[in-house]
Amino acid sequence: MNQRPDGVAKGSCAARGAVELHAALKEQLKDTGLARVEARACTASCLDVCWAGPVIAVEPDGHFYGRVTAADVPEIVASLRAGTRVERLVLPPRDFDEQTAGPALPVVRGG
Amino acid sequence: MNQRPDGVAKGSCAARGAVELHAALKEQLKDTGLARVEARACTASCLDVCWAGPVIAVEPDGHFYGRVTAADVPEIVASLRAGTRVERLVLPPRDFDEQTAGPALPVVRGG
Repeated sequence: MNQRPDGVAKGSCAARGAVELHAALKEQLKDTGLARVEARACTASCLDVCWAGPVIAVEPDGHFYGRVTAADVPEIVASLRAGTRVERLVLPPRDFDEQTAGPALPVVRGG
Repeated sequence: MNQRPDGVAKGSCAARGAVELHAALKEQLKDTGLARVEARACTASCLDVCWAGPVIAVEPDGHFYGRVTAADVPEIVASLRAGTRVERLVLPPRDFDEQTAGPALPVVRGG
């Protein structure tokens, strides 16, 4: 998971809540019985869409959720159970290019 | 990337060469101009197929390479360029279950 030293202007996914996001996703997948059997919450090194981070690459479905916060996790888990996706979080093509992407999430802590 | 303390009987992907594997893949993707534009070598937390590790989840293609060593990297990079896959490394369904999987790679160092 991308982390940078405190105070770096660019921030990082960790500074935008990725650590808590991963923990929440992992816990709620476990609570709903999806963990291991149906879905696994893995961390990854930088996926190179910093401006839209934290992102979740949903595989094998092949889409990215972007600007995800821990508050989105219940909806993500429910959609995994239902076999649907959370359309409002799916990154459109323009968000894979920093020049055309929408605004980044605010940095919520130093790291 | 999965790592365990030195001497743990189960070993780990790191103990089976995953660190060097990732470095070789990243470097050779860069050398061939595939990095950023066509392919990105990301690390991930444990993908839950320990017995077949190190593994590479090839996305969005949707297959796993298993028991991969740094020696396999040139062939992997060449196949990415060619739009093919390295069949001998693709994990068959039986390798996703520890009870039916083939033998693990030997541990090459403690960690």
